[in-house]
Amino acid sequence: MLTMQDALIRLTDYWAGHGCLVAQPMNTEVGAGTLNPATALRVLGPEPWRVAYVEPSVRPDDARYGDNPNRLQTHTQFQVILKPEPGDAQEVYLGSLRALGIDLAAHDVRFVEDNWASPALGAWGLGWEVWLDGLEITQFTYFQQSGGLTLDPVSVEITYGMERIIMALQGASHFKDIVYAPGISYGEAFGQSEYEMSRYYLDDADIETGRRLFEAYAGEARRMLDARLPVPAHSYVLKCSHAFNVLDSRGAIGTTERARAFARMRGLAHEVAGLWVERRAELSHPLGDATRAERDATTGAGRSAPPQAPATLPELDRAGTFALEIGVEELPPHEVAPTADQVTGALVGGLRETGLYGDESSAETGATPRRIVAVVTGLRPREPDRERVVKGPRLSAAYDADGNPTKALQGFARGQGVDPAEVGTVTVGGVEYAGLVRTVTGRPAAEVLAELVPRVVRGLRADTNMRWNAPGVSFSRPVRWLVALLDEHVVPASVAGLATGRTTRVHRTAAEPLVSVPHADALTATLRANGIEPAVSRRRSRVVEGAAPLARSVGGVIDFPAEHPLLEEIVNLVEEPAPILGSFDESFLTLPEEILTTVMKKHQRYLPVRSSTGRLLPHFVTVANGPCDTEAVSAGNAAVLRARYQDAAFFFEHDLRRKPEELKTGLEKLTFADRLGSMADRAARIRAIAGELASHVDLANEELDVVRRAGKLAKFDLAASMVIELSGLAGTMAREYARRAGEDEAVAQALYEMELPRSAGDALPAGVAGSLLAVADRLDLLAGLFAVGSAPTGGSDPFGLRRAALALTAILRGDPRLAAVTVDEGLRIAARNQPVEVAPEALAEATRFVARRLEQALIDEGHPVQVVRAVMPHAGSPAYAERAARDLGGLLGDERFRRLTTALQRVLRIVPDGTLPGYDPGLFAEPAERRLYDAFVRVRAELPRYATLPEFTAAVLPLAEPIDAYFDDVMVMDRDPAVRANRLGFLADVRDLVTILDWPQIA
Amino acid sequence: MLTMQDALIRLTDYWAGHGCLVAQPMNTEVGAGTLNPATALRVLGPEPWRVAYVEPSVRPDDARYGDNPNRLQTHTQFQVILKPEPGDAQEVYLGSLRALGIDLAAHDVRFVEDNWASPALGAWGLGWEVWLDGLEITQFTYFQQSGGLTLDPVSVEITYGMERIIMALQGASHFKDIVYAPGISYGEAFGQSEYEMSRYYLDDADIETGRRLFEAYAGEARRMLDARLPVPAHSYVLKCSHAFNVLDSRGAIGTTERARAFARMRGLAHEVAGLWVERRAELSHPLGDATRAERDATTGAGRSAPPQAPATLPELDRAGTFALEIGVEELPPHEVAPTADQVTGALVGGLRETGLYGDESSAETGATPRRIVAVVTGLRPREPDRERVVKGPRLSAAYDADGNPTKALQGFARGQGVDPAEVGTVTVGGVEYAGLVRTVTGRPAAEVLAELVPRVVRGLRADTNMRWNAPGVSFSRPVRWLVALLDEHVVPASVAGLATGRTTRVHRTAAEPLVSVPHADALTATLRANGIEPAVSRRRSRVVEGAAPLARSVGGVIDFPAEHPLLEEIVNLVEEPAPILGSFDESFLTLPEEILTTVMKKHQRYLPVRSSTGRLLPHFVTVANGPCDTEAVSAGNAAVLRARYQDAAFFFEHDLRRKPEELKTGLEKLTFADRLGSMADRAARIRAIAGELASHVDLANEELDVVRRAGKLAKFDLAASMVIELSGLAGTMAREYARRAGEDEAVAQALYEMELPRSAGDALPAGVAGSLLAVADRLDLLAGLFAVGSAPTGGSDPFGLRRAALALTAILRGDPRLAAVTVDEGLRIAARNQPVEVAPEALAEATRFVARRLEQALIDEGHPVQVVRAVMPHAGSPAYAERAARDLGGLLGDERFRRLTTALQRVLRIVPDGTLPGYDPGLFAEPAERRLYDAFVRVRAELPRYATLPEFTAAVLPLAEPIDAYFDDVMVMDRDPAVRANRLGFLADVRDLVTILDWPQIA
Repeated sequence: MLTMQDALIRLTDYWAGHGCLVAQPMNTEVGAGTLNPATALRVLGPEPWRVAYVEPSVRPDDARYGDNPNRLQTHTQFQVILKPEPGDAQEVYLGSLRALGIDLAAHDVRFVEDNWASPALGAWGLGWEVWLDGLEITQFTYFQQSGGLTLDPVSVEITYGMERIIMALQGASHFKDIVYAPGISYGEAFGQSEYEMSRYYLDDADIETGRRLFEAYAGEARRMLDARLPVPAHSYVLKCSHAFNVLDSRGAIGTTERARAFARMRGLAHEVAGLWVERRAELSHPLGDATRAERDATTGAGRSAPPQAPATLPELDRAGTFALEIGVEELPPHEVAPTADQVTGALVGGLRETGLYGDESSAETGATPRRIVAVVTGLRPREPDRERVVKGPRLSAAYDADGNPTKALQGFARGQGVDPAEVGTVTVGGVEYAGLVRTVTGRPAAEVLAELVPRVVRGLRADTNMRWNAPGVSFSRPVRWLVALLDEHVVPASVAGLATGRTTRVHRTAAEPLVSVPHADALTATLRANGIEPAVSRRRSRVVEGAAPLARSVGGVIDFPAEHPLLEEIVNLVEEPAPILGSFDESFLTLPEEILTTVMKKHQRYLPVRSSTGRLLPHFVTVANGPCDTEAVSAGNAAVLRARYQDAAFFFEHDLRRKPEELKTGLEKLTFADRLGSMADRAARIRAIAGELASHVDLANEELDVVRRAGKLAKFDLAASMVIELSGLAGTMAREYARRAGEDEAVAQALYEMELPRSAGDALPAGVAGSLLAVADRLDLLAGLFAVGSAPTGGSDPFGLRRAALALTAILRGDPRLAAVTVDEGLRIAARNQPVEVAPEALAEATRFVARRLEQALIDEGHPVQVVRAVMPHAGSPAYAERAARDLGGLLGDERFRRLTTALQRVLRIVPDGTLPGYDPGLFAEPAERRLYDAFVRVRAELPRYATLPEFTAAVLPLAEPIDAYFDDVMVMDRDPAVRANRLGFLADVRDLVTILDWPQIA
Repeated sequence: MLTMQDALIRLTDYWAGHGCLVAQPMNTEVGAGTLNPATALRVLGPEPWRVAYVEPSVRPDDARYGDNPNRLQTHTQFQVILKPEPGDAQEVYLGSLRALGIDLAAHDVRFVEDNWASPALGAWGLGWEVWLDGLEITQFTYFQQSGGLTLDPVSVEITYGMERIIMALQGASHFKDIVYAPGISYGEAFGQSEYEMSRYYLDDADIETGRRLFEAYAGEARRMLDARLPVPAHSYVLKCSHAFNVLDSRGAIGTTERARAFARMRGLAHEVAGLWVERRAELSHPLGDATRAERDATTGAGRSAPPQAPATLPELDRAGTFALEIGVEELPPHEVAPTADQVTGALVGGLRETGLYGDESSAETGATPRRIVAVVTGLRPREPDRERVVKGPRLSAAYDADGNPTKALQGFARGQGVDPAEVGTVTVGGVEYAGLVRTVTGRPAAEVLAELVPRVVRGLRADTNMRWNAPGVSFSRPVRWLVALLDEHVVPASVAGLATGRTTRVHRTAAEPLVSVPHADALTATLRANGIEPAVSRRRSRVVEGAAPLARSVGGVIDFPAEHPLLEEIVNLVEEPAPILGSFDESFLTLPEEILTTVMKKHQRYLPVRSSTGRLLPHFVTVANGPCDTEAVSAGNAAVLRARYQDAAFFFEHDLRRKPEELKTGLEKLTFADRLGSMADRAARIRAIAGELASHVDLANEELDVVRRAGKLAKFDLAASMVIELSGLAGTMAREYARRAGEDEAVAQALYEMELPRSAGDALPAGVAGSLLAVADRLDLLAGLFAVGSAPTGGSDPFGLRRAALALTAILRGDPRLAAVTVDEGLRIAARNQPVEVAPEALAEATRFVARRLEQALIDEGHPVQVVRAVMPHAGSPAYAERAARDLGGLLGDERFRRLTTALQRVLRIVPDGTLPGYDPGLFAEPAERRLYDAFVRVRAELPRYATLPEFTAAVLPLAEPIDAYFDDVMVMDRDPAVRANRLGFLADVRDLVTILDWPQIA
């Protein structure tokens, strides 16, 4: 049996054999091997670096007293950095799994999108989790940025989770059962430590000491930066980070504090990175310069392109087929289809432009996570010839009075290599020029394609793009091979450090992973012959047709319509779908379904199996990639699910031991934000604010009871382990636990709905109680955080205040029963309930902030910008504003409304800002003055109090004509100041009557 | 070439192959692998444990900016623990060196005594440094105690210093040149970190932060102990220790602070250890119980003794030879000869007692570090027969009136298995008993020896003793084999887990390391045939005769008389002396000779080579153990010396850049003690105290100048790097640097002498300036530390106050010019100069403390206890007290003095304590009263003021007779209170006259 220590020794040997320096774990607590300076600092700058090391990684949050089978406060990472990324890191990595004795052909090894970002480090990268039969055993990342600096060259980071790997290999179901060394188990060796450090992190660490340590460390990091010593500075940033993590696991970190601490650590980490880069440059890069080595090795562009023999371009004499395969490392599922479209679009578009693609041509696209395939049939053998106009001097300047060619024309002719006499006349843009029409011979298809293929590859773009060790390209994942065939010929091209060829790659576990494609027509067939299905639709069918009988075999079905988004993801996670049935212990069915399906679908991409009545069955279907040992893969996946469900059950049972009220006392330990008290204080405020808001709403008694009871329990589930673990279940678990505690269904539902909407486009609360609480929640967040000066700045919105403001306006827009609740009044109520004084400016700022979010939302929903701006005076009543925007959109085409608008603009333009209404109608001398005054008095009297915009327009329309007449006849700016003031005072009154819109916006 | 990382991988593989669990370095900074819980905690308690791991060890004090070739703030240890010690750990260890590719036959590998103690951990052990050609490459320790707890079973700790080993193997002369991994040097990989962390530890770490961290960590350790969590508590003790080390390397730790911090850390470490042991017991020892396993495997005593077949004891029929070899792991050199004496003494004594050893017998002893050999020839074949008296009841109770045996006698006879008639009469202690005289047949020699050998082995004792995995024995180092031969027969015996046999062990590198000895007579010859020389004198001759020609070959000599102590050490460091010549670079000769010879002799045990005029030559002779590759060993040793001299040169040059005055400013940064300021403050006080003391001494002007100038520079070298590094050179370096700075020779000498005596028996200051400063130094130490409550308690004397008090009295005794300086006055002067108030009680306590030291010293020097006690009234003038003790010793036999003493005792006994002198001579009625009074008045008048004891005795002697007469005739305790008081008042006056001695002590 491979012991844990054997595995570490084998990995060390393997990677040392692949040129890695073997480093030691960091001598201060780190949460991950990434933080070790052998990674965090070494990936910066141009120096090459290969390193491998063990890193016992301390995550106080994961402390479980050693009780949880799969989670440890200290787990063992094996970390590898390859810098620059070598181009075949995935394959070398798979070799290391073989070195561990893993039979890659029997198991389902997959690269599943998992991008990585550490805000605290200012670092991110793109890559995957590597799955072994559904178990995440490795993080594989192309580092893009660290310490806020863009990395060049790019490094590959490979992080093995050793306990998980060994548990899988040894078939252990608890980490303590791992055979660590011959005759000694993990539990025997480290069980006590696991328990005691858990106690420390969860229960016993002193919070005040933790805060002091954090400050001391941060201070020392600051001083070392000032002393230009990045190494000790980095060490103190790590200590900071650990101190923070300990405080966090003790539940002592509130939102504000978290945000501030992160900002501080990020700032320090960025400075460390910058300083390290400077210092290495000062030391003249002792390990060399990988970028220079590359620059030296090649010349010009394509710095790492393999040398390319001068191309002999094939020529076709009839219509042919062009096949392009862009081989990539595993794309994220959601990028597969868009990338295929993009490639086909660029290819067909490019070919169409040149005339190679005609009506008789057709293109077929295929896409899997590892390849984009485009096959164009009926491609014309060459471009049509075409005429090109060459423009010379203006005709008027081309010939002198005698009709002889001027010097200008002579020069032009000489430049074109023709006799001046051969120059004719061309017309460009309606102007006549001396010029020529030349015939350009069409290029052969191969020549066009040789130019087009690099353009297509360089044009690849995804939602999130990365760089790798290839010049001039940036895409979701690295491009690793290119097949470009025109019939039987290779179309020679070079891009992204690659040369086109006819060799495709099939399954990595195939006996022959490299396969030669004889002819463009044969590409798809060759892939299929090797198990790869490039057609998405066929893969989808295979999943559906393969999974259904598996489900039936256990008396169940898969609700494919319901699982459609998951199906689409699965289809783009594999190249050869192989559905496999797995099961889990029925006992887990006592867990709430949301938990079970969330884990299956979101985490594991398993299709849940249900009975015909929709009840969840203890089975699932996973879809492996290609042939494997079905039993082993099924068992492996089942073990993963068991582990996850054990985790969940652990939390669930732990939570259920306490009633909602008891759980809620846990909120007192959760600091919410500096000066804003605990999460319990915040929950109390939400309750109070909802209570005050309720008085603005017409509620039945039983509704009021629900608001009161749900308000009393508000947010209690934030203290539940399950929600601490899976924060996405906030609200869901509140409802679940409330129901189980015997609360009214309406109360349980209100507790759920008060967390809605969780994101843009999410459902809104359906009941008024949920709405009120949801609104109170957001009002409290906004009023409090603006009061303490934590408004979002720039790109940073750590408290999600933008989301909160959007949710607030969305709920107010969505629930007509809240029509009487205005943002302004709501914020004032919330402000009164804060434990700090909310300055009037802060309140005004918060109000403006909400208004801007509303404005943006309405614009995003398709309302014209000027319309939205015009209705902004009603931002405080989002529902009204929305309706006004809709109405205004309709009115804008209306001739009468246009006339009214024009008239009102005249009024608004002439009245200086700040002019107060005030006049003596008796002084109105001109008839037009009197007329307008009379009309104004009438309109004002008849204007409904809460008019919609159409009602208002209809009511005010009678003013349009008198206003126009007024401005035609009356000199407002009379020389007599008294007259002038009287007139402006009157017009200000008119102005104030029409503030329903910000009229200048629609001028 | 073996890279550093290859070496680590090979050691990991080797030890994993020997049953070690491979652990990871500690995730907080530690100064040594010992501190990792895998050692510090796991060696406690009964659980077996084998572990190996790399430990990058952080020693801020060793930071040198990466400039020093041999010293790093982080060096790499490879640590192994074998628990219980397996009995062959040395051999297994040597196998690991072979695994590193070291040819043990070519090199000189030695186990050189090096005991280890960590006061901060409450831990100690006995063992060795392992030398490879003079280079310390490994610490090898039998752990005896940790966390203040005695270890059972005992563990072996093996700690490899990797950088040193690799530098030697690669022939690198700077750590930066080590090939760490293929194509990458140590400097390239870690040079920047070495520099920056050095900067941090030496220059930039914030001292206030450091103190805060220390407190925070200590507090957290305390809390975790209270929570009964030893694992996190241990982690915080380690953090404490590192924080302390950082403060120390920043020069921020004074003596008091150091002592307090150590006490605190030690206290915490002890509690951690105790708690760990408790917790493991509560967990029922998950890894098992090595002591129980042993108990179960064997029964009764000799728990790990191999099973022993019933012995067939050989019988001799004529005088024979007995040979005993006790094979041990390498003894400390100073233990070799005493152990040999002890063994021979016990053996011969035991044999003589039994009558086996007669006048015709003789014993020969041999001893090397690995064996004690005793050969007894002419041993008688068996004990003589002897008679044994068996005592029954008293004769008076044995027979009744009729002469018939009583029941008592009958019982006795029955017990003896004889007829009552056979019982006779025996006389014991002058009393007659009924009894028997029986003849006991003498046992054969083998039987006696079989009993004696275990007693001899169990009786082994050294200055410092250890336990190992053997019951009932405790000695300097483990006993590993026993040869016991009576002529050709093995004398069967079993002790210390070993059975006697005929197999001896020769050099470990021999082709056949185990050799059978055919006959007792052949033991010595067998050893010699295998290169082992058991005779110390022969080894001595070999060293002398081998080294001299080597020295001559480079034109030098070795001053063997001068090097005698070193020679004795060398002779007992090897079994087969092989002198080898080595050289060092002449440029090092510019360093002061004390430095060069200290390093050669104390650190390396090399014999210095001098020219005929005594000038040091750049050569040395090292003495290897047995045959080896002379060139390789010479080169290896030379490299070690070079490294050490480079170190020294580095410090020396660094120091010489600054004048004494400049160096002295460095004292300001050295905290002396809490509330007693910096070392600069202390130096200033010494200067001031010496100045005041000088006024009590008759000094020439030039002498006063020397005191003033030397006082100004006092202690400046404590701030010199050389002294910080080699504290034993304090004073020596002051003289050296002062001379080089152009100070007067007398000043330089005084600076040297003020540090004398450095230990008991060391030279005293020769000049009065040195004496005065030395005295001032100790007075300051005593007055200051007693004032702040840091007097020694129990066994703890962290400030060396006992040594200081002894030095003070030694100097005052040694320098007649200081006769007028009393301890009391000196302490008063010192007290006046302290920055804190010195309470009268503290001053009195300090005075008593010094007196007790003087008392102890005089007793140790052979003065009778009562004599010393009697002269203690003069403890304030140690010179006087000493002379008085000497005189008193002489007087004690003197009849007249005895008579005086008796007379005076009568006076002293009758006068109650506290009686003040005071009387009216006119009231003296009795003639005896008047006579005594007259004699008293005369004596008092004639008594010299500063009388020696004989002068005093002579002067006071005339009182003896009148006193006796007085007490014969006069009733002191008269019924009339007035008379009584008058008489007692007079006798009190007599008493006060004779306080020159504490008379009752010699009553």
